[in-house]
Amino acid sequence: MYQVDLNSDLGESFGNYTLEANDEIMRHVSSANVACGLHAGDPVVMAHTVALAKEYGVGVGAHPSYPDLQGFGRRRMIMKKEELRDFITYQIGALYAFTKAAGVPLLHISAHGALGNVAQADMDTARAVCEATASFDDSIRILYYGNSCLKDVADHMGLPTVSLAFADRGYMEDGSLVPRGQPGDMIKDADQAVARVIRMVKEGKVTTSAGKDIGIKAESILVHGDGAHAVEFVLALKAAFHREGIQIKNFAQ
Amino acid sequence: MYQVDLNSDLGESFGNYTLEANDEIMRHVSSANVACGLHAGDPVVMAHTVALAKEYGVGVGAHPSYPDLQGFGRRRMIMKKEELRDFITYQIGALYAFTKAAGVPLLHISAHGALGNVAQADMDTARAVCEATASFDDSIRILYYGNSCLKDVADHMGLPTVSLAFADRGYMEDGSLVPRGQPGDMIKDADQAVARVIRMVKEGKVTTSAGKDIGIKAESILVHGDGAHAVEFVLALKAAFHREGIQIKNFAQ
Amino acid sequence: MYQVDLNSDLGESFGNYTLEANDEIMRHVSSANVACGLHAGDPVVMAHTVALAKEYGVGVGAHPSYPDLQGFGRRRMIMKKEELRDFITYQIGALYAFTKAAGVPLLHISAHGALGNVAQADMDTARAVCEATASFDDSIRILYYGNSCLKDVADHMGLPTVSLAFADRGYMEDGSLVPRGQPGDMIKDADQAVARVIRMVKEGKVTTSAGKDIGIKAESILVHGDGAHAVEFVLALKAAFHREGIQIKNFAQ
Amino acid sequence: MYQVDLNSDLGESFGNYTLEANDEIMRHVSSANVACGLHAGDPVVMAHTVALAKEYGVGVGAHPSYPDLQGFGRRRMIMKKEELRDFITYQIGALYAFTKAAGVPLLHISAHGALGNVAQADMDTARAVCEATASFDDSIRILYYGNSCLKDVADHMGLPTVSLAFADRGYMEDGSLVPRGQPGDMIKDADQAVARVIRMVKEGKVTTSAGKDIGIKAESILVHGDGAHAVEFVLALKAAFHREGIQIKNFAQ
Repeated sequence: MYQVDLNSDLGESFGNYTLEANDEIMRHVSSANVACGLHAGDPVVMAHTVALAKEYGVGVGAHPSYPDLQGFGRRRMIMKKEELRDFITYQIGALYAFTKAAGVPLLHISAHGALGNVAQADMDTARAVCEATASFDDSIRILYYGNSCLKDVADHMGLPTVSLAFADRGYMEDGSLVPRGQPGDMIKDADQAVARVIRMVKEGKVTTSAGKDIGIKAESILVHGDGAHAVEFVLALKAAFHREGIQIKNFAQ
Repeated sequence: MYQVDLNSDLGESFGNYTLEANDEIMRHVSSANVACGLHAGDPVVMAHTVALAKEYGVGVGAHPSYPDLQGFGRRRMIMKKEELRDFITYQIGALYAFTKAAGVPLLHISAHGALGNVAQADMDTARAVCEATASFDDSIRILYYGNSCLKDVADHMGLPTVSLAFADRGYMEDGSLVPRGQPGDMIKDADQAVARVIRMVKEGKVTTSAGKDIGIKAESILVHGDGAHAVEFVLALKAAFHREGIQIKNFAQ
Repeated sequence: MYQVDLNSDLGESFGNYTLEANDEIMRHVSSANVACGLHAGDPVVMAHTVALAKEYGVGVGAHPSYPDLQGFGRRRMIMKKEELRDFITYQIGALYAFTKAAGVPLLHISAHGALGNVAQADMDTARAVCEATASFDDSIRILYYGNSCLKDVADHMGLPTVSLAFADRGYMEDGSLVPRGQPGDMIKDADQAVARVIRMVKEGKVTTSAGKDIGIKAESILVHGDGAHAVEFVLALKAAFHREGIQIKNFAQ
Repeated sequence: MYQVDLNSDLGESFGNYTLEANDEIMRHVSSANVACGLHAGDPVVMAHTVALAKEYGVGVGAHPSYPDLQGFGRRRMIMKKEELRDFITYQIGALYAFTKAAGVPLLHISAHGALGNVAQADMDTARAVCEATASFDDSIRILYYGNSCLKDVADHMGLPTVSLAFADRGYMEDGSLVPRGQPGDMIKDADQAVARVIRMVKEGKVTTSAGKDIGIKAESILVHGDGAHAVEFVLALKAAFHREGIQIKNFAQ
């Protein structure tokens, strides 16, 4: 029996702006990266999202970002390591309060958007993520993806890690993602995306944009929490998992 | 031997704006209400402030506010109880992460500015403060002042409380503060302020603006963390405490 | 031939949060209250919205708010008159820059949400709106509704005004709106709402929630820019206007 | 008779955080770059600062920034050209409203902090500054410094420019500033700084950090608006200007 975690960025509503698909997707995943108020989310949304995760038995993780609400955390900001670490500590704590109030554990951390991308490739950023996490609770799992220095730093610091794979992104030969805007960056065909995920989970392999097979560790699969086809795709993936004997299970179970 | 807690609002710098007296005052107080980023403070300031509190053995408490950086939390905002509760939970958690990273306990909560004022008089606001606190950790002490419904709600919920008295504010016959802008609102003379504090601590009494003596419970004395004469006044108070045999001690000791 | 302005709050997207109906509604109205970044809107959204208004020949007005993005400007904030005036001046100027760049006039101002409600009833708030407007350009029209002190202040200062009527809100005998949450606050039936608007325009009358007819000046009709049925309702209203010989025309034409 | 503009970044207070030297420096300069609320400044501060500039006859310019209050606009943010242009348009307009209300012209624009640095070297950023300015009012002068592509873009678009020189920064052979943190970045000795400025104005020359003389166009001299020695330095500079027959005059006079 195969098993894999199904992961999504959720709780990304803000104030009057409600991403309705977020709540729908929560029913189907096994782990949620919950926005902490700096790129999306606010205290009311966070309380609601954690309550929903508890209701559906979904593992909660922090989804910290650069402080950039207008840019949705998608713009790289040049911050010093210590400064960035403190901003991440802040967000971990803010979310932790809601998990504590709800009586659920804070299981993991997955850096958002530009911070997430930079953390895979920049040592200081990777250290900021790991140091903030370790100083708070060194059993919190670090989610990383691709050929990542975040994984290296976490390993070196003795922090547990979870390897995240993308259903809809192309891969390069070194295991990193094809940068957005380059040919092969996105897997647009849903059937193909599902087939790729199945193969990642069962065979530990994915075909790069150049057509070569590489090894991939897919402990968790990231699916979108919003957008026109998010729910549809998750349902298709779940159906395929069922067919293929793959169980959806949080990495902490 | 008498003893009293000396308390101040600290960590109210923000980004490039540094309140230098904040760090100086930290050397002299026994408890600090640390800003949580919504009226003042930011993650870098919070980390610095908690480290300083640890260095000087000062008890750390959360100082949550309405979300109003430009107004420094001094403007009342009309928020629903649940919404306000979530905003307070957020701020408690954010600060908690820095105390956890530093290895010091989060001892108390003292609502800031307009939120603090409203919490003494408005039941829903008092409940928001107490519910957020209790849901996170019901051993965190609720600081209140005057004739306060915050005290009543905390008592009713079984939360520990600490009574805060003001060195430089006038009192009315019911134990509440003379509203700012009314005659007798401020005690401007430093010697008089010191004498009043000594009497509050030793006799449990204060003279109202109308000239009548009333009982006052002064477990903690609030002194300003900023302004031209803050440091000077704290030193005068400490000298008087020494002279009068009053020991400065955090309420948790 | 009757004529009336059709007005809506538009440009209320923010960053990653897109209110798609906003752009659709722009095709149908004759004046738009454009968010200025403090409750909604951001520079990119403002540039886009003004360009769209220009394309469809829609009159542009400023839609200033209390500074409260998370609360969408729906929470009353207690600000001093001068402070509020400066915040409104700021927003008028910010929007003006986009109208100037696009080569269209800034025709009116319509205060948003809680600020709008308070401005109809509180003299200082009404003065803040009018003083900010007059100091910038005293030909900018002040939109008001109900039995409004904003209208009185504008008249007194010699500022032009436009009377706004609501398609979906109940009225009280003094011409003010039935407060939200009270019986008769909303006109939920679309046909009834359309019929009421027609009568407002052609007869200058509306039936109060208590069933009495009162006079109403409906120079402009506010329709929602977002929500499930916004577009549908605007189309129904336009069809009825066509049928009844009512022309949709901006108040400046 | 020589003449030069004396320029400073002012209006950088925010809410409760007051930079007192800002108001003192305003008495001595001939042009002020006024913060527009995105790195510092707020509507109340802007109104106050423009009123003060009017009182002392100081020319007002916009001082736009990346949207980064906590970082005081000192962190580079990766924004698209169009997005950045709209953010600058927003800030120009916001400040313009206060100049219009005060009856003074908006004379120039000087990009702040990280935006200012990037604008001298990055074509897209330079274009964003110039396009925002030109679309609003093409008589607004673009302040630039060093060997700057901002100057090139402004020239190409036919916008007037003013060359800014720094009293306290070291120069490299190509006319650009020695980057902060490198040897020779700062001129710390006040007498030396004054002497350099005198030579820049009278001879059009400055000695680089490597000891070579290069030509420099110093139409405006930037002095600090805050910090311990800001006022002292400006007074020393004014005394030296008086001695040397150099008149302080805004570039628009």
